[in-house]
Amino acid sequence: MSSNWGKNIRLSIFGESHGAGIGAVLDGLPPGIKLDMEKITAYMARRAPGRNAMSTARSEADLPEIQSGLLNGHTTGTPLCAVIRNTDTRSKDYDNVQALARPSHADYTGFVRYEGWNDIRGGGHFSGRLTAPLVFAGAVAAQALEAQGITVGARIAAIHGVEDSPLNPAAVTARQLTELAAKYFPVLDEAKGKRMREEIEAARMELDSVGGVVECCAVGLPAGIGSPMFDGVENSIASLLFGVPAVRGLEFGEGFAAARLRGSNHNDPMFMKDGQVRCQTNRHGGILGGITSGMPLVLRVAFKPTASIAQVQQTVDYKQNRDAEIEIHGRHDPCIVPRAVVCVEACVALAILDCGLEGGNPHGFDYTAR
Amino acid sequence: MSSNWGKNIRLSIFGESHGAGIGAVLDGLPPGIKLDMEKITAYMARRAPGRNAMSTARSEADLPEIQSGLLNGHTTGTPLCAVIRNTDTRSKDYDNVQALARPSHADYTGFVRYEGWNDIRGGGHFSGRLTAPLVFAGAVAAQALEAQGITVGARIAAIHGVEDSPLNPAAVTARQLTELAAKYFPVLDEAKGKRMREEIEAARMELDSVGGVVECCAVGLPAGIGSPMFDGVENSIASLLFGVPAVRGLEFGEGFAAARLRGSNHNDPMFMKDGQVRCQTNRHGGILGGITSGMPLVLRVAFKPTASIAQVQQTVDYKQNRDAEIEIHGRHDPCIVPRAVVCVEACVALAILDCGLEGGNPHGFDYTAR
Amino acid sequence: MSSNWGKNIRLSIFGESHGAGIGAVLDGLPPGIKLDMEKITAYMARRAPGRNAMSTARSEADLPEIQSGLLNGHTTGTPLCAVIRNTDTRSKDYDNVQALARPSHADYTGFVRYEGWNDIRGGGHFSGRLTAPLVFAGAVAAQALEAQGITVGARIAAIHGVEDSPLNPAAVTARQLTELAAKYFPVLDEAKGKRMREEIEAARMELDSVGGVVECCAVGLPAGIGSPMFDGVENSIASLLFGVPAVRGLEFGEGFAAARLRGSNHNDPMFMKDGQVRCQTNRHGGILGGITSGMPLVLRVAFKPTASIAQVQQTVDYKQNRDAEIEIHGRHDPCIVPRAVVCVEACVALAILDCGLEGGNPHGFDYTAR
Amino acid sequence: MSSNWGKNIRLSIFGESHGAGIGAVLDGLPPGIKLDMEKITAYMARRAPGRNAMSTARSEADLPEIQSGLLNGHTTGTPLCAVIRNTDTRSKDYDNVQALARPSHADYTGFVRYEGWNDIRGGGHFSGRLTAPLVFAGAVAAQALEAQGITVGARIAAIHGVEDSPLNPAAVTARQLTELAAKYFPVLDEAKGKRMREEIEAARMELDSVGGVVECCAVGLPAGIGSPMFDGVENSIASLLFGVPAVRGLEFGEGFAAARLRGSNHNDPMFMKDGQVRCQTNRHGGILGGITSGMPLVLRVAFKPTASIAQVQQTVDYKQNRDAEIEIHGRHDPCIVPRAVVCVEACVALAILDCGLEGGNPHGFDYTAR
Repeated sequence: MSSNWGKNIRLSIFGESHGAGIGAVLDGLPPGIKLDMEKITAYMARRAPGRNAMSTARSEADLPEIQSGLLNGHTTGTPLCAVIRNTDTRSKDYDNVQALARPSHADYTGFVRYEGWNDIRGGGHFSGRLTAPLVFAGAVAAQALEAQGITVGARIAAIHGVEDSPLNPAAVTARQLTELAAKYFPVLDEAKGKRMREEIEAARMELDSVGGVVECCAVGLPAGIGSPMFDGVENSIASLLFGVPAVRGLEFGEGFAAARLRGSNHNDPMFMKDGQVRCQTNRHGGILGGITSGMPLVLRVAFKPTASIAQVQQTVDYKQNRDAEIEIHGRHDPCIVPRAVVCVEACVALAILDCGLEGGNPHGFDYTAR
Repeated sequence: MSSNWGKNIRLSIFGESHGAGIGAVLDGLPPGIKLDMEKITAYMARRAPGRNAMSTARSEADLPEIQSGLLNGHTTGTPLCAVIRNTDTRSKDYDNVQALARPSHADYTGFVRYEGWNDIRGGGHFSGRLTAPLVFAGAVAAQALEAQGITVGARIAAIHGVEDSPLNPAAVTARQLTELAAKYFPVLDEAKGKRMREEIEAARMELDSVGGVVECCAVGLPAGIGSPMFDGVENSIASLLFGVPAVRGLEFGEGFAAARLRGSNHNDPMFMKDGQVRCQTNRHGGILGGITSGMPLVLRVAFKPTASIAQVQQTVDYKQNRDAEIEIHGRHDPCIVPRAVVCVEACVALAILDCGLEGGNPHGFDYTAR
Repeated sequence: MSSNWGKNIRLSIFGESHGAGIGAVLDGLPPGIKLDMEKITAYMARRAPGRNAMSTARSEADLPEIQSGLLNGHTTGTPLCAVIRNTDTRSKDYDNVQALARPSHADYTGFVRYEGWNDIRGGGHFSGRLTAPLVFAGAVAAQALEAQGITVGARIAAIHGVEDSPLNPAAVTARQLTELAAKYFPVLDEAKGKRMREEIEAARMELDSVGGVVECCAVGLPAGIGSPMFDGVENSIASLLFGVPAVRGLEFGEGFAAARLRGSNHNDPMFMKDGQVRCQTNRHGGILGGITSGMPLVLRVAFKPTASIAQVQQTVDYKQNRDAEIEIHGRHDPCIVPRAVVCVEACVALAILDCGLEGGNPHGFDYTAR
Repeated sequence: MSSNWGKNIRLSIFGESHGAGIGAVLDGLPPGIKLDMEKITAYMARRAPGRNAMSTARSEADLPEIQSGLLNGHTTGTPLCAVIRNTDTRSKDYDNVQALARPSHADYTGFVRYEGWNDIRGGGHFSGRLTAPLVFAGAVAAQALEAQGITVGARIAAIHGVEDSPLNPAAVTARQLTELAAKYFPVLDEAKGKRMREEIEAARMELDSVGGVVECCAVGLPAGIGSPMFDGVENSIASLLFGVPAVRGLEFGEGFAAARLRGSNHNDPMFMKDGQVRCQTNRHGGILGGITSGMPLVLRVAFKPTASIAQVQQTVDYKQNRDAEIEIHGRHDPCIVPRAVVCVEACVALAILDCGLEGGNPHGFDYTAR
């Protein structure tokens, strides 16, 4: 399989970049969750291409057509399906890459895996376009979490080594996350954001691309969500996030920096505040033993530079088994990080929802008391 | 759930640190895989405590007693189960922490999640001891992979910021990995290893602990294993690895460093070599679009410093809901990274085996041609 | 969840009777399976309503619109999705049953389960119409099985107690099954079929309905497909079949009749024939210990009489919690068995495909040798 | 895979008849469920061999040794594991059947499936002995259901065509079920029971065996448990029950008899009683659309006659590929139905628990309010 995910909810994503349509089925949603379609559309617009000079020129309405599972603005509890039609598909842009593996793309691995039967136009099922139904599903999950008082939000933490100002992981608020989500280029420090955009623009000018880091937080999470070992919140998030194209790394709390610390500098002192167990610092990132601690969830995701660059590259013709050169034309973002922010949010929202609906967890989400 | 993992094989881990026994059931193994019990024991000994001054004083035989699934030295194809008895359990060491949350441990989150019903002696099901059955299962998987010509091996890449010499991800060999596995303290550069051990010893002397990074590779992997989106090799590895206590981050190929690169420096030029598609560099780390490329698999895992330190720490009594101080006694490693090396290997071996046995993948592992 | 099924392939069904569209996503199909859309349409036409006097007057094209997963007439290996639009939806027929539970329907149980949020128009997600995407998926599976030399076929074994002539389970052939599938009213004995149709017609005349039995066989199955305990072929078929509305029972081989036999009359004597292990009789129905024996698979499925009858019935208003009477209008089959034949075939085909693609089974299906 | 089951709880069964031990891991149980080990032992004793003249002479303590998941008499919420040692294993009884397929057994199919690597002593993993850990798990589930006010009980409905008196499916009570469970030979009508035992004894005298039917009920079930399509209560029960050796059929409510009825005689009239929706009859058997209706759950399971009979039978030597005769010695029940009663109960209890713990069902079981 490939595009099926979840233990308590089940997400099934389908489609190819240049096929008839792409979409998602989300099964296992509790009934009666209020869904605001305008908010879903706005959420999806954050990853849509064609919004500005920094992203691909491909413009699509990308409106999800709800097939089922939504009635009078509320989830029915039966499978929710949305289809997004592919309308603007210029296949000939890709004609010259029919058997030339684009370096750092899945052209060659996909060819081997599917013995040449897979649709390679526009990347087919491997296309970043497949994050549109993922983000749709994430938008639904985000609203389901809102009903539980949970807010998920992300920002661009770094582009090509230029880092945004640090965020205090022990003090991040829902308001802060909501404000970031509303930004065109979500950073805390606008001056840093300007320098990041300059990095992107410089890369574009040189027919190159750059990578970056997205940091995502969730606040309002109660303690007790998740399970040890393989059903932890981290496992769930990771199992989804590595399905987003270009993700190369994932860290929670201090992450890789923790490997350079001593225990006395990494352990978070705990204390009582208003009858609640809290930590003075939040180096653990909101999860201990796979289970939420009640502190904000904090994670970072590394994205590689866009693989499609217009420079000449050494590659192979994988059908003729010979060396070749490739020059990639078409529409490509010099940096996918700005559009990836909401993809990370979507994955985190879906994973939290899945964990919170775990059967047998006495602290799981309850949608009955509305 | 918590301790059940796998799509094509299914691993079920049970036990608590101070209960009667811990163990693993591994279902879905192909029949007829030769298993060398001595190699399994040797593999497991790499994570066993009590081997040297650097690890906890708790000594256990930790011999897995095979209950089923193995006959005449070969897998039967029906569930393989091993039980490891708990023999050396001194519960009173933990008596004073009955309601004091050890910072950076799962005491508090476990208490909330299980409403106080879980076994907290020695960390219960959250204990690092539960990696013993995981490593047993990994030992089995490693031998199953060997039969396919695949070698998995790992090393200590860094301890408390002291880094081992870099390994060339495009040129790593099975021999190199096997040699590392045989080492007492698996690093490439012995001088760096000495400095790492000094960091550990210094931390111990100061009643403190340190974290580190493990780097793991797999060579001999054919191209075409894994699937896009959520059944990729990365997703599979991640979904297992974040179940290992103290893991804070995971990256593939260039990982977080990729976020600081440009595409022209990150994309791996491809070429034909002896009729095989190869890459000149291996910044992608052996997986593209979730699918193996035939290049070595390379990943790094960040471990936090051991949470249990003997210094006085601020915490809470989570039953009485009051602030408290805690001083943790008992037997604890000042650095768990040396013992974690084989845990990472085990997870990677299990994940590769699971991906390689995916139904419907024409390039999956075949155990019939023996 | 509700509408997600499969271990090696994954089927996700969505839709409501009167929503925008219904459909199916089938993930995990091997790449390169040739699919004949005309055959799929013909297969689906066998369950479509409105074909004759015996079925409901609702007529729909019910043509599946392929969204993804099919390219140049072959499966790509990535998710296959088809959407069927709902075009002929007369909601007002159902207006009077808004809060009156139709006896033997899921109105009341659905209301409780989904707290009143589910779409009840036309039965919503509980509608027999949802078997359309199931049959689509079955049509795909049937063609995948054909490529392995396996034929699945079913017939009407009984209607309202009128039984068709017995079929020899040890000697059934692919030809016999193909001929049955081509029949308008698939029975072996046309005289018995005529009497069955009279039963249906008599029921219709009296505003009543009748039940019946479908018998399904699969031939060409190699020995060795399936696994013991919970991943047996029977478990797989059963887990799918009980999702078809109106199914009340399922039996394999001799089934319930075996309970009235002695071992000496039930055990199937075995012998060698042309180097193959065969049984002289086939009371076991092709599966032993969950695994195919190489003999034809034989099973029977009991269908209850159509729940919707036009007579006055005692019921409750489940919103006002009061007794009530109900008279069901609208379009309903007096007997759903003729249309259910292909639904049973679809389930059996999907289950066999799922079992045959089990990872780690050395005798599983292989689609590479085309 | 083979022996792994469950969506919200996860059961993993391991072991072979003549291996070191057999057992079960049950993951996902809510924490804090009180378990009475004496009741578990008594429950398991109902399927144990060697209790009387009617069952096999093999006597074993079959006491489950709890490895984990139980503390101070309550579930911890982490995996519960029990191991049962195999102590009385006389392998030589089976020596002569090493390559002779016992008709109606899984010898041949197991040989093919596992390419001859599986343990065939005593039936190996296919042995009826593997129902011991299943029944252990069922005993745990039954106590978890008790805490929700749900009682599961079964009886022998028929042996070799001799039927017990009918049970009123609309009026069955917890008391009735508890009384049946306490009986040595659980039937409603002792005279019928006596005749059944005579059938068994007659078969034994003639070196033969007989089959029978078990009827199982569950009372106290709230309405709203389960889901439509593939996660219905029937699907769940079926997916487990067909893993019990010798099961040939399963029917709910009227079952196959429904196929001979008209809708007007099958639909259950509904009415209000004490503010609850009830049915005057219970032909639907407690489930509509996969979801419990609040009426008793009623199902029947057909068991074939014991395959092992001491008469000479025609068979094959599946290694030498030649015809042969077999005479089965060893210890075998002439009828396994009396011991199978509790196996059916166990499956039904596990399936109900799994359905009741479904995440996202607002009517699922809640163990917090103790």
